[in-house]
Formats: sequence, structure tokens, C-alpha cells
Amino acid sequence: MSDRLEAALDFARNNQEQTIKELKEFISIPSISTDPQSDGDIRRAAEWLVSKLENLGMQNITIFPTERHPIVYGELLAAGNQKPTVLIYGHYDVQPAEPLELWQSPAFEPTMKDDKLFGRGASDMKGQIIATLKAVESLIRTGKMPVNVKFIFEGEEEIGSPNLEDFIENNQQLLACDLNLNPDSGMLGPDIPTITYSLRGLAYFEIRLSGPSRDLHSGLYGGAVHNPARVLCELIAGMHDKSGRITLPGFYDAVRPLSEEEREELSRLPENDGFYLDTSGAPALYGEEGFTAVERVGARPSLDVNGLLSGFTGEGSKTVLPATAMAKISIRLVPDQDPGEIENQLMSYLEANAPRTVSWEVIPLSSALPSISDRKTKGVAALSKALEETWGVRPVFKRMGGSIPVVAQMQKLLGVESALTGFGLPDDNLHAPNEKLHLPTFYKGIDALIRFFTFVGE
Amino acid sequence: MSDRLEAALDFARNNQEQTIKELKEFISIPSISTDPQSDGDIRRAAEWLVSKLENLGMQNITIFPTERHPIVYGELLAAGNQKPTVLIYGHYDVQPAEPLELWQSPAFEPTMKDDKLFGRGASDMKGQIIATLKAVESLIRTGKMPVNVKFIFEGEEEIGSPNLEDFIENNQQLLACDLNLNPDSGMLGPDIPTITYSLRGLAYFEIRLSGPSRDLHSGLYGGAVHNPARVLCELIAGMHDKSGRITLPGFYDAVRPLSEEEREELSRLPENDGFYLDTSGAPALYGEEGFTAVERVGARPSLDVNGLLSGFTGEGSKTVLPATAMAKISIRLVPDQDPGEIENQLMSYLEANAPRTVSWEVIPLSSALPSISDRKTKGVAALSKALEETWGVRPVFKRMGGSIPVVAQMQKLLGVESALTGFGLPDDNLHAPNEKLHLPTFYKGIDALIRFFTFVGE
Repeated sequence: MSDRLEAALDFARNNQEQTIKELKEFISIPSISTDPQSDGDIRRAAEWLVSKLENLGMQNITIFPTERHPIVYGELLAAGNQKPTVLIYGHYDVQPAEPLELWQSPAFEPTMKDDKLFGRGASDMKGQIIATLKAVESLIRTGKMPVNVKFIFEGEEEIGSPNLEDFIENNQQLLACDLNLNPDSGMLGPDIPTITYSLRGLAYFEIRLSGPSRDLHSGLYGGAVHNPARVLCELIAGMHDKSGRITLPGFYDAVRPLSEEEREELSRLPENDGFYLDTSGAPALYGEEGFTAVERVGARPSLDVNGLLSGFTGEGSKTVLPATAMAKISIRLVPDQDPGEIENQLMSYLEANAPRTVSWEVIPLSSALPSISDRKTKGVAALSKALEETWGVRPVFKRMGGSIPVVAQMQKLLGVESALTGFGLPDDNLHAPNEKLHLPTFYKGIDALIRFFTFVGE
Repeated sequence: MSDRLEAALDFARNNQEQTIKELKEFISIPSISTDPQSDGDIRRAAEWLVSKLENLGMQNITIFPTERHPIVYGELLAAGNQKPTVLIYGHYDVQPAEPLELWQSPAFEPTMKDDKLFGRGASDMKGQIIATLKAVESLIRTGKMPVNVKFIFEGEEEIGSPNLEDFIENNQQLLACDLNLNPDSGMLGPDIPTITYSLRGLAYFEIRLSGPSRDLHSGLYGGAVHNPARVLCELIAGMHDKSGRITLPGFYDAVRPLSEEEREELSRLPENDGFYLDTSGAPALYGEEGFTAVERVGARPSLDVNGLLSGFTGEGSKTVLPATAMAKISIRLVPDQDPGEIENQLMSYLEANAPRTVSWEVIPLSSALPSISDRKTKGVAALSKALEETWGVRPVFKRMGGSIPVVAQMQKLLGVESALTGFGLPDDNLHAPNEKLHLPTFYKGIDALIRFFTFVGE
């Protein structure tokens, strides 16, 4: 190992206390992008990042306003023209913390317990952002950045990044780079460094049904008026067939089939059915017939009910026949499905199946294209080597069930591939109460990123 | 018309201002029985009734505590042994007012608009209670009650009267009477005085499903873990077949078939399908094949979803695969169905149909037996005459879709029939925002009750 690399790794290890202090500060800002009440906190989080970039001596630091939440940018191009430029992506917004009563410590008061740090955003992805900042800082403080770096932090990832694509399109010069580092995917276990090469897309909708013009007494009208909550249930029930396949018309037409070779490769991942059973805590697994859990999650589309609301949901009983019913429905897409086509399919399904006893509307809430990357690029190769040297084992390559739309956008608009990794673990409770970050893995992640920048610059 | 009757009617008409003042006071007390926060208001409503009974010179006035909300009792037996005793039933509790934002004036600030009084409980049934009190007062102030009267006011009707049956069983001597007057059913229109001779029963449940041990990220698990909200929808969808019949095993075994004679009679009611379409505001009617709307609501059982809750229901999107899903389901029963048997049928249905990917529980929330009354009794005959003299038309006889469990309980425990009427209208928004009372009909109702007591005493 070179002395410079050694010095940077030492710097990171000697500054863990300060690293945790900053991470706690960052988590304490409740930057919930979906909540209009949080606009001030979103702004605070953006300004907090600016102060960190300033501390690193970054240049051209800017808070770019968008129609909703701002984008933070900063760059350090001191490595010179001969060295590659790495664009580092992060999102500083977080999911809502509800249901609050299930948190064992307050969501926005980061709390250390054993070797874990609990708090909303600890793993997704404020911890990952801090890891990249600390890796860059360790290299700068002990010498010089081996590559040029540009940081782009958005505040809208958890609401589907409505303004990011336009921003990238309008700032192609500013964002020009050789590769993108995206640490927003996770690891399969604390000893299994992981590179993600494919992501699912997303089409997220709210469906609203209206029946009677007002809530009715279920005794006086029950039996003669179609209950919108029941109709909603019937429509949702009809969206899958008995084999677990989705019934929207034409839904599977664009789905790229899994080759036998890729199925063979995916079967070598440690994420077998037992893994999904254990980490989900579900009584039993379930899904499309003919596929394993890892295939269902990574390489097959899925349709989930994310929320249901109708009528009286308080304590006790109220004999109401509700006037309206609402469902949030999201569909995860695989190559080569398109969110716009999925919306058309959903509309066709409802047109064909919604009874005339209700009226309905569909509100698209967010969408993302699916993506798949070439595993042979320089960035992925450097990342693979960095992870292997840090953990002492070769990383695994996986398809990820989640959606990171920016990957597809950078591929399309900047012409660059993304090296996707991250140091979150499957039991981090992403998007759920008691989100946490496993600190030993997080520290290794900083080491790995120091190595990654070094290897990309060689 | 006798001078005494005339004097009582005059007294009522000359005191309308005071009547409205007292009705507004009563509505202002938010006596919501299902809400544990409202216990103090429930108590206030009970004490308010006591003060009214005291003003009338009632005797033996008592607030009987129960396990939850108290029962108010008072009697005036001055008519003597030769005269019949009428037990007057009422409930002083009301439904919750949610959704509050849909009220045009605050639910518990009674507001006069044209000839209507708006407020929660105005029609169901604080207005009806005031009508009985004012009818009795008018007779007392202008002479003497022509019959003995006993008042029983419960505070738990809107939560299924969990303590009323025990109270009646334990106080059969106190409540002994010749007939029950129950003004908790309504009229079909302002010119259609109505007597209800049959009521549906009720079996109300909360169904709770649990899947994964916590909320999951719908990208990371979607497709491999059965979504409890979707399972709930599938289970609810399966509770009806394509002809609109309920599929719980054995559900129709105890349903008393409608005779051709009764169908003929029900077809003469003004409540035709157009009535249900207009008053519900639904785009189209729907229900069990082979029956009209009035038959579906009055003489056939029905199953409604009263509430649905799962996952994220706030503004925007959250990509969560929820850990749990909840539905409130109520079933309206007709003779000779039994709520206990219905619970067993629901359990059998879930045992047979719930997949092993979820666990489930059923919480019974309230129940009521269906009832059907003999239309030839003295009380019903006197009521029929009183309504006819007041409105100038013969009343119609109907089966009511709602549930008034006390009717079946009095039949069973006190051996008396109930004369069921009421002066609420179909567009009163019972159990919904903007509940109101039509005052011209309400005043006629007081007149009719004065006549009813007079005729029963003749």
C-alpha cells in the first residue's frame, strides 16, 4: 500500500469521533421532502452541506433552487486534466418518520446503541453522504485528491426526484465527468461488499374513488349503494392473478426476460429465500410463480399497495358507508418497461374494470426508469478492487429492487455509467421506524471510498 | 278535538322558541360515545337530561352508572293504575363528527339556516328526545299526563349499546310497561309520516392483518413479500360474489325469505330506486341481484366496509410495503340471523381464505339482533292515528335498514312491543357531516306525540 493511501486511511480512523458528531448533526435536521411543512429543514440541510463543502475547500459551491427543493453543488478540480473526474451523487432528503410511536428513540434525535446509530436517514442516505465527504477529506488533509471530484446533492429523491432530470439536462457542462459514484445502494451483509448493476424503475400513483355524494349511514343505505372502499378492494384484488402475475393489460410485453446465465449468477448471491424470510419477518414468502425471491425483487416487476384510507379509522365503531376511498399504488419496473406506458396500462385497467357505481381518478406521484449497467467500466473495476482490499473478499454483483432514477438519467444525459455501492445493511429499517446505521461497516465504507478515489486516479 | 288536547297543542306551539333554545343547549354538548376523550361530555349530557326531567316533576330520577356511559331514568306515574304505562326510549350519545373539515358550520355549535338546525345529533337523536320531552311537558303544563310515562336514556347507542341489555335484564321491575315508544327511526319525507315495523341487526368487526414484522421498503422487498394491504383487499373482494351475494359460509341459511305479499307492500313505499339514487348521490345503484333497493336495505342483509387503513396515507408518496392493514367491516342482519353465528361465519371465511403469508385477528366491536314487530298492537295503532291526524295522511309502514337493538331487547326482556317512529328525514345526513333537523317536521312531531299519549290513554 502506498504511503499516501496509508496516511489517508489513518486520518479517517483517527477522526471517527468528529465524523460521528457531524453525522449526528446532519441526521438531526428533519429534511422530509414529501412534507410541505419541512421546507425550512430542507433548506437547513442544504446549507449544512454547503458548510461542509466549504470546509473541504471546494469551489463553485452553489445552492441551485428548483421548483421544490434545492440542489447543492461543489467541485474540486485540482487533480488536473490528466486525471478523471468523478461525479459524486447523494440525496440529503429523507422519508417521513411515521408511525412515530414505533420508534424506540426519537427519529430526529440520533441515538447510539452498541455499535449502531439510530435515526431517520442514518442509512438512507445521510450516513453514505458523510462517508464520501470524509473519504475526500481524509485524502485532502493528508495530501491531494487523486482525482477531480464534483458533488451533487439533491433534496427530492424520496419524492421521485421531480426536478433532477431537468437540472442535469440544463447543466451538462457543469456536471461533465468520467464516471458517477452513487453510494445509495447497500450491502447484502456486513461481510459482503456489494456492487449493484441494475435497478428497478418506479411508477407511483394515488387512486381515488368516489361513490355517494357524502358519507352515508350504513344501515340506511347498506345493500343498495356500492361501497367505494369495497370497490377499491375489488379493483386492487383484480390487479394480480392467481399465479401472482400483474394483470394490467400489456404489462409484461416490455419485460426483458432473464437469461439462464443471469439466473445462474443470481442464484449464487447470499440473498436466498431464507434471507428474505428472515429479514422481512413475514410468516411466509409469496410472489410471482416460477421465480426465486431474489429474482422477484431484482429482475421482475412488482405491484404494491403503499397506503389505504377510507371511512372511519379511529377507535371503536362508526356505521358509515364512506363516500370516498383512496389507495397509493406503486409498481416497480424492470428493463425495458416505461413509467408512462404503465400509467396508460393502469388507466386501461380501471376503464375496463371500475364499475359505473363510482367515479375515479389516478394521480401520478412519481416515476423512474429502470436501468442496467455495464460491469466492465473503469469506475466499477476500481470500486470492485477497493471493496475487495477493504473487506478481503471479492464483492458480489447484484440487481437491486429499489429505484435510483438518477442512474438512468446520468446514463442518458451525461453519457456516464454509475458505480453503485453503499454501506447500509438489509436490516437497517430503511423507510421504516428505527432506521439505523451499522458503524463498523460505515467506517470500512470510508476506507473503501478512500481506496476507490485512489485507484480511479492511478 | 278535545279541549285538553287543543290546549296542549297550543302550549307546544307557543313555546317553540324555548324548545329551540333547549335543543341547541343539548346539541352543544359533544357526547360522542366512541371517543374516550368525551367521557366528561357524556356525563354533562346525562346531567342535562336529569335537569329536564326534574323540571317536569318526574320522580325516581336516577343516573345509573354502567361499565362505560350512564343510563338516565325518570318516571311520572300520576295517571294511575288504570292507565297504561309508556316507556320512552332515547339515546343521548352521538356519532363522531369527523371529517370536521366538511362541516359548513361547527358540528357542536348548532346553527339555524332557513328552517333547518345544523349540528351533530340534531336529528339522531337529540331532536327526537326533545320532541318527547316537549310533548310530555305540553300535556303536564295544561292538565295532567293521560298515561304513565317512564323515560330511559342511554349513552351508548352509537357504540352498539354494550351495557343496555344487562341493565334492562337487571331492572325489569323498574322498566315494567305496556308499550315502548321509540322515536329513533325516521320519516320517508316531510309529508310521509312513517312507522317502522322491522329493523336490521348488526355485527361489526375490526379485521387486522399483519405481514412482515415491520414496514419494509417496497423496492427492496416488493414482489417477494405478500403485501398485507393487498391481502386485505383480496379478502374483502372475496366476501361478495358476482351477483352481489355475501359469501361467508352459511350466511343466508337463517335469512327469512320475503313473501310475495310483503314485497308487494314494500313496492308501494315512496322509497323507490330513484329515491335511493337521489338521496345517496351515488352515480348508480348496486346490490344483490333480484331485489329492489328498498328490499335490499330493509329486508336483505348487507356487508359494508366502514373503514380501511394501511401504510402511508399522507400527502405525496412513500414507497413502503406496510407491515399491517386494518378494515372495519359491518354486516346488517335480517330475521332470523344472529350476530354470534355471523362472527363464526366470518372466522370460518378467514380461516379458509387468509393466506399463510399473513396473520390475522378479528375484533368484534358491536352487535344487535334484527327485529320484526306486530303492527296490530295498541301502541302502534295509537301512533298510526296520531300521525294521521297530524299530517292528514295515513302513515306508511316500513322495514328499516338500520339497527335499534333495544327493540329486540325489550321484546325479549320486558315482553313489550315497540312503537317506532321519528321525525328525522332521509337527507338529514345522519352519521355524516352537516347533520340537520327540519324544524317544521320536528314541530309536527311534537304535535303527533301529544296526540299519541292522549290516544294511548283513552
